[in-house]
Amino acid sequence: MYPKSLENLISALQGLPGVGEKTAERYAYAIYDMDYEQVHALSKAIGEIQSTMHECVVCGNYTDEEKCEICQDLQRDSSTIFVVQSPKDVVAMEKTGAYHGLYHVLNGLIAPSKGILPEDLNIASLLRRCKDIQEVILATPTTLDGETTAMYLSKKIEQGYPEVKVTRLAHGLPTGGLLDYADQMTLSYAFKNRTNMK
Amino acid sequence: MYPKSLENLISALQGLPGVGEKTAERYAYAIYDMDYEQVHALSKAIGEIQSTMHECVVCGNYTDEEKCEICQDLQRDSSTIFVVQSPKDVVAMEKTGAYHGLYHVLNGLIAPSKGILPEDLNIASLLRRCKDIQEVILATPTTLDGETTAMYLSKKIEQGYPEVKVTRLAHGLPTGGLLDYADQMTLSYAFKNRTNMK
Repeated sequence: MYPKSLENLISALQGLPGVGEKTAERYAYAIYDMDYEQVHALSKAIGEIQSTMHECVVCGNYTDEEKCEICQDLQRDSSTIFVVQSPKDVVAMEKTGAYHGLYHVLNGLIAPSKGILPEDLNIASLLRRCKDIQEVILATPTTLDGETTAMYLSKKIEQGYPEVKVTRLAHGLPTGGLLDYADQMTLSYAFKNRTNMK
Repeated sequence: MYPKSLENLISALQGLPGVGEKTAERYAYAIYDMDYEQVHALSKAIGEIQSTMHECVVCGNYTDEEKCEICQDLQRDSSTIFVVQSPKDVVAMEKTGAYHGLYHVLNGLIAPSKGILPEDLNIASLLRRCKDIQEVILATPTTLDGETTAMYLSKKIEQGYPEVKVTRLAHGLPTGGLLDYADQMTLSYAFKNRTNMK
């Protein structure tokens, strides 16, 4: 039905989340009709993302350098760590403008049923960072895995660093809600009303 | 907010039709999380489409070769040409399985208000093809520009090849169409051109 090159493109585009054949076809025709420079930029940006971007050696956030911009920024309050599931959540929180401390990206949640154990996540590095910290804010989602992870982290920090305050975001986030889908007001409110976990 | 490489990718993905910042961000994270092979295939398919695919020298349909698959297929009925606006329409018609002749892709419609004149479209090549043909089916859309183009082509073919039959697709109610959802033009046309049931 399609030339081989178009068929390949349509099939590759169907790898994007929520993109079926009809949408992939629409994208493919649009790409064919774009300016050469635009197509080249898109192809290059896709081809290079995995080799250029990686996890920050300190906090696990995405960066093109050794340390992410936030970890490099000496203006940030280095006494608090805001712990999230993924780099998307860092972006969501930064958009609120309500927080000025550091972050730690777990890159997942503890989920024994899916075989994801604490050692599969950036947890050891979080615990090591706790020695110079006053407060850890646990901002995992309010899902079963999110709560399990928060409980686990809270206990671990309590054991190793009893002087560190452990808080979590205030209830106000809807149950089952993902952080990067929350509107800024809700997320900002939840941050301000974070509660003590121990 | 984002690493430069991610920002570039999100911005490039927003060139796709109907893709805003939120969707582009979702696609970008998904691309980063894909297998290397999948990312490479996507980048390559996008980067190569414009240099590999082009218009068939005979009919204007998209192809990777000199002539498209349909023009190369000797099994097709070479006495009829089905004239459409774009290669997408060829795919749509082929999916019906109802037609076995050849196609001609105009690659646009006559629209003097937008500065698109007959010489900007694949019309000269269509007229040249008419000398070996019995029937030309005009399947431009039933919009103002589509009807203008059909009228123009009909006259040109009549002038140059009076022996060639010129038809157009039947107009009327779509299958499963409710009467009160049809626009007045469609309903009025369907009434005037009602067909005998026995």
